[in-house]
Parts: sequence; structure tokens; C-alpha cells
Amino acid sequence: MKRNVLIIGAGGVAQVVAHKCAQNNDVLGDLHIASRTLSKCQEIIQTVHDKAAMKQDGVFDAHQVDGMDSAAVAALITKTGAQIVINVGSPFVNMTVLEACIQTGAAYIDTAIHEDPTKICETPPWYGNYEWKRREDCAAAGVTAILGAGFDPGMVNAFARFAVDEFMDEVTSIDIVDINAGDHGKYFSTNFDPEINFREFTGTVYSWQKGAWQENKMFEVGREWDLPVVGKQKAYMSGHDEVHSLAANYPEADIRFWMGFGDHYINVFTVLQNLGLLSEQPVVTAEGLEVVPLKVVKAVLPDPSSLAPNYTGKTCIGDLVKGIKDGKEVEVFVYNVADHKDAYNEVGSQGISYTAGVPPVAVAMLIADGTYDQGVMMNVEELDPKPLFSLLDNIGLPTRVKDAKGDREWNRA
Amino acid sequence: MKRNVLIIGAGGVAQVVAHKCAQNNDVLGDLHIASRTLSKCQEIIQTVHDKAAMKQDGVFDAHQVDGMDSAAVAALITKTGAQIVINVGSPFVNMTVLEACIQTGAAYIDTAIHEDPTKICETPPWYGNYEWKRREDCAAAGVTAILGAGFDPGMVNAFARFAVDEFMDEVTSIDIVDINAGDHGKYFSTNFDPEINFREFTGTVYSWQKGAWQENKMFEVGREWDLPVVGKQKAYMSGHDEVHSLAANYPEADIRFWMGFGDHYINVFTVLQNLGLLSEQPVVTAEGLEVVPLKVVKAVLPDPSSLAPNYTGKTCIGDLVKGIKDGKEVEVFVYNVADHKDAYNEVGSQGISYTAGVPPVAVAMLIADGTYDQGVMMNVEELDPKPLFSLLDNIGLPTRVKDAKGDREWNRA
Repeated sequence: MKRNVLIIGAGGVAQVVAHKCAQNNDVLGDLHIASRTLSKCQEIIQTVHDKAAMKQDGVFDAHQVDGMDSAAVAALITKTGAQIVINVGSPFVNMTVLEACIQTGAAYIDTAIHEDPTKICETPPWYGNYEWKRREDCAAAGVTAILGAGFDPGMVNAFARFAVDEFMDEVTSIDIVDINAGDHGKYFSTNFDPEINFREFTGTVYSWQKGAWQENKMFEVGREWDLPVVGKQKAYMSGHDEVHSLAANYPEADIRFWMGFGDHYINVFTVLQNLGLLSEQPVVTAEGLEVVPLKVVKAVLPDPSSLAPNYTGKTCIGDLVKGIKDGKEVEVFVYNVADHKDAYNEVGSQGISYTAGVPPVAVAMLIADGTYDQGVMMNVEELDPKPLFSLLDNIGLPTRVKDAKGDREWNRA
Repeated sequence: MKRNVLIIGAGGVAQVVAHKCAQNNDVLGDLHIASRTLSKCQEIIQTVHDKAAMKQDGVFDAHQVDGMDSAAVAALITKTGAQIVINVGSPFVNMTVLEACIQTGAAYIDTAIHEDPTKICETPPWYGNYEWKRREDCAAAGVTAILGAGFDPGMVNAFARFAVDEFMDEVTSIDIVDINAGDHGKYFSTNFDPEINFREFTGTVYSWQKGAWQENKMFEVGREWDLPVVGKQKAYMSGHDEVHSLAANYPEADIRFWMGFGDHYINVFTVLQNLGLLSEQPVVTAEGLEVVPLKVVKAVLPDPSSLAPNYTGKTCIGDLVKGIKDGKEVEVFVYNVADHKDAYNEVGSQGISYTAGVPPVAVAMLIADGTYDQGVMMNVEELDPKPLFSLLDNIGLPTRVKDAKGDREWNRA
């Protein structure tokens, strides 16, 4: 049993995490949120109170902290009495926040793989470069660390585990498909921090196929998918966190991630990329000013958090898992559909932030009640998915299954 | 009779002007080139000597000057003894260089309309905002000032005058078409300074039709042209200097300018424009750095002068002029075709710079021998075009005519 949550970060996902924690503070206890900018934390808490989201009276305090400073984060954990840390800050702070948890014994949850700001697309498996090097330290300290517990990675890892356990004797492939069929009404925008968003697509695309890492370029491999609710959508093989842990846990299967892109997105991305405007290397203007082009692109693009009020349409994210059952080929699609407008009405955020922010709160609740509090480091597919699905059915992200028998809730036969 | 030339500017067009002046220094006398950066002037003179371009032994000296400083330019005119100034510097310096000519009595030639760096696309007629306000001062001082004496504006103004004088009793329309069918082999590049290039297309498109200024947006009006040598090409109605003087001199005709653009150019331009990356208004990055997006775009694009060695293909620039002759409708296309590779071999520049840089030297030669030295301010269509055509036939830009009788040299019946 653990209580009291410290949220690290104050962006769009942090806002969802804050609202969901507040809606469940009977289970989670005192709530705290900290980022480099105190005012952003205060603003998020204000939106929580504006929606009267606290389930019961309780603490929700804002703090200033530099997530790159382990000692400062550890001191804040001690000061607040937080036993669970939900890290939804920049992926650059994962290792320092994890270190603070190891020092203090707090449970650690994050939603994206650690990144070094100076490196793009490191060698696979990405988790092996940073997080997994701290496995023994977590076990020795009895620290529960649940990595990549957002939607993708996160729920899609649980979908894979569920499909393999329930529907097949052996697994042959796991294809994760992420389609955002929403419309934000802008000429162009990324759905989260453009710097992080574009980094996903400027490096090598790694997939795990035929027992080895395969390399492709972005937008080199695309196919059309026909998915529930959102219909036919084009998606492209992309590098993504969960491919790296699923490949370690299901090495016998082909593991691929597919991200949906419209032609317009690809065109804008291609123009910017080819011109060198997505570069992180500084250029010098004719006037002698040194500037990183990507940071200027970020400055002219809409703030992703500004999209929420007018965002309409739905997302569909799921796993097409193929395998063998009783000697026959089987396949199942395990998925969730979320609605941008519903997300905004509930927590003031768009659907992309909603799908990323709700699962780590569910994981925190399952740590709080002991279910997931196993005192070691794990990726989500290493946990029993059923308690997570049951909880998420109730707090906003229901899981469904589609196979030869039809399309139904995950727990219907 | 005037002698000795001072070239203002040290960009791609200035290089062409320098070579052509050198090739004709028997007529032009001592040569001088000045810009803000002395080393650029010295490098241009070096290329002249590398090509052994001086027709006879003579002076070619480099100087440093700030074109925005009238007194400094006037002092340099006096010091060098230049009686002809060819201004191919930034269009921001036209009025200060003209002022220096009025002070010293030197003849003035430029190739583009004056621009205020803080304003885009001023109210028509553009010449009326700056240059034409100095007409009386030029006349009073007996200063010959020939405005817009490049290719377009410049030769195309002479083409219009020639077509009207030779082929019709009255003119009904003048359509200037500028097609660059060359290939520079880069993903994307502008052919001259991106800042100046994009400024042409981010404002209102003004045309003179039915006796009044018409306003359109860039890429709003396009049509396919079928031109000599370059064949079928799509061009779009654009704002351009010569529309503004031709509308004053031929108010009875519709005057339009059409610039050729491939779909790829338009796509890149549209993406950059819609994202706000062509803006001259500074933005602030997340890190607090204030930066003008257009200057960053310029910094990542190829330096236009770097295109020359690999530029292949041809340009076709001409005027389709329609009118009435003996009560019947007639039309004639007066044009020039230039070759990028030929230009590079001769003067080390690509074809766009070549077509812009050769005509002002021809005009200087016609001032030197007295033909065009009329002691007043004029646009090119106010001069007899035939001496200019004859001279350019011999020094690199021959004029041709295409009409119902066929396609031929301008001076063949």
C-alpha cells in the first residue's frame, strides 16, 4: 500500500494526470505537482479546482523543481511524503527522476523512454541504453519502477500481453497501430512538443522482424489499415519505445509500430526536413545570429495545448496480434477508441494527451493498492493486464477486442 | 560622352556587371566596384582577371562603401571620377545612391525598384512612392537616371515599346512572362537572395487591367504558356516593378506580369508561408531567443551564387503584346532565350544573374556614347529600344520576335 503522488512536469499530459489523480484522490492521497516553472503547476491545479475534480477534500500543492537535479527531486519527494512519482516531464529527465526514486524508495512511473537531448534515435534496444541499466538497483532497493506506462508505450504493451495470453499458444507478430483521426482545424500542428514529436521521425526507423533489428527510413514503409470507428487510414512504420521492450519479451514475434499520417502532414514534414529546418544543429544567419532551426519551427507552430478547445474526432490505437492457436493461425485486434471533445470536456485537454495521461494514473492506483507494487523495474507487458483494463474501463479508456468472433469488450467471451 | 563606371553591390548580378564592363572597358573607361564588404569586391575583380575579361589594360579597383550613406557614395564618385553609376546593390539603397548621383552629376542606372526594408508591397504605382519624386531634381541637375534597366524590369519594357511602335496602331494588352526552365539540382533554392525573392510573393499581386489597379493573391491566377524553346510552362500572375511604369506609359493597355513556377516551388513556398516561416516579424523561441523566421530560412537555403556551376537549361523571358493594326487584332511575342551553362562559362554566374546584369552594362555603354544620355530620369520604355537591341545582339542577349509571320530576329522583316 502506497499513498501520496508527486507529478513531475506541467505540460498537456501532466494536466490530464493531475485531473485523473484528483478524481481518484481517495485512493491516491495527497497530490503534488512540480516543474521548472511554478506558475504552470499552479495553473494546472487551478483547472482541477475549476472543474471541481477533487473526489474528496485533500492536498494538491505546486512546487518548483529542476527535474535534471536528482538531489532536488529526492528532497521534494521526502518533503511531500510522496510514495509514488508519476514522471510526465520531458523525456530528458527520466534518469535523474528515477535516481531520486531509488534514493527515497518511492515508486516510479513514466510514459516515454529516456532521451539524451544531444542524441537522436540511439541503438536498439533503446531501454538498454539507460533504464534497464538500473534494474538491479531498483530490485536491491525494492523500488517499483514501471516504464512506459502511457498509451503507446503502455496500454499497447498490455494489449499485446493480453492477446498472447488469451488467444494463442504462440505469437508470430505484433503490429501496433496509432491512428489519430481527429481534426484540430489548424493548417499544421504537432499534437505534442514539436521538438520531441519531430525527433521521433528524423532518425532511423527500427523494427524487430525475423529475430533481428531491421532499419528503414521514415515514410519508407506504409500501408492502409481498416480500423474500428476511424475506418481506412494510412499508417507508416515508425520507431517507437514499445517495440524495444516487446522485442525483448517476445523475441519470437515480429514487432512493428505504425503511426498514421495524412498526406498533408507528410508533405509539411518532408519540406521542413529537406530544407534542414528540423535540424538540431545551429545555423548562423546573415546577421551573425546562431540559431537552431528546429527551435524556430517550434516557435511558429501552434502550442499543442491550444488545440484542445476545437479538437474534434476520434483516435484509435491498438495491437493487431497474430499467432497460432491449436495449430491454426489466429489474429486479434485489441484496441481503444478515444474522443477529443470528450477529453476536453472532462479534463481540458485533447485526446492525444488524454490517452497518454490516464494510464499512468491507473498504474499509480494499482501501485497504491499493492497490485502492481512489486519492488522491481518492469515494462507494462510484464504486468498482468486485467486489473489495468478493469480500472480503465471505469475511468475513461475502455479496452475492446475484435477478432473472427466479432467486436466486443475485452472481458466478453 | 561619359566615361568611368562605379558599380555598387557585390552579389551575383554585380559579378555579371563587372565582367561585362571589363569586356567593354574600351568604351566605359576606368572601372570601380564598391560594397559594404571590400573582400567581396576584390573577389569579383579576381574572377574578372581569372577570365582575362578586360578588353584592354585599364583600372578596375575595389572600394568599401555603405550604400545607405549618400555622402560617402558621392565622395567615392568624386574620388574615382566615375561619370556612370550602375547600382546593383540591395534595393534598399536606391534612393541614397540616386541622391549621390544628383549631387555629383553622375548618370544613375539601377535594375530593381526601391524598397523600404520595413515595408512589403507598397501601394501602386510603386515608382511613385520613391523614384519618381526625384524626377524634377534629376532634370534640374541634368542627371540621366535610367530606372529598372535589368531584364525584368528593363529589357521587357523595351520589348513592350518595340512591339507597340513596330507592330500596332494601338495596344490593348502587355503580358510579360518570365520562365526559368533551368535545373539547379538542389531540393529547393531561390535564384537570388531569398529575403528579396520571397518578398515578391508574400504581398498583394497588383496588375493594371481595364484602366485600374487590380488586386489578387499570389498563385491565385495561373495559366499555361507555350513559349519558344522552353515549351509549355505554368506561370502565375505576380506583382513586378515594370507593371508600375508600363501602366503609366500605356494606361490604355492591360499590363500583367507572369512568373513561372513549378508545382514543387509552389508547394515549398506554400508550406513555409502558411507556417509563418517567411515572416519578417521576429518570434521568440522557448529559450527566449528573438529571431526573424525568414532569416533562418535564408540561412538553411543554398547560397544562390553556389548554384551556377551545376545549373543547366534555359530561360525564356518575353512580352506577349496584343493590339490593333489597320483595324485588325494583332499579337506579337518579343523575347530572349538565355542558357545557364553559357552564362557560367562566360562570367561564372547562372542565367538569372546573367540576364539581369548584362542589360545595365549595355545601357551604360549607350550613356557613354551619348545615345541614352538625356539628362533626365526615365524608365526603359521611354528610350528608343533599337540601339539597345543592336548592342545586346552582340554582347550576349539577342532579341527575337514571334508572330503570325514566324519566329525570327527582331530586325528581320
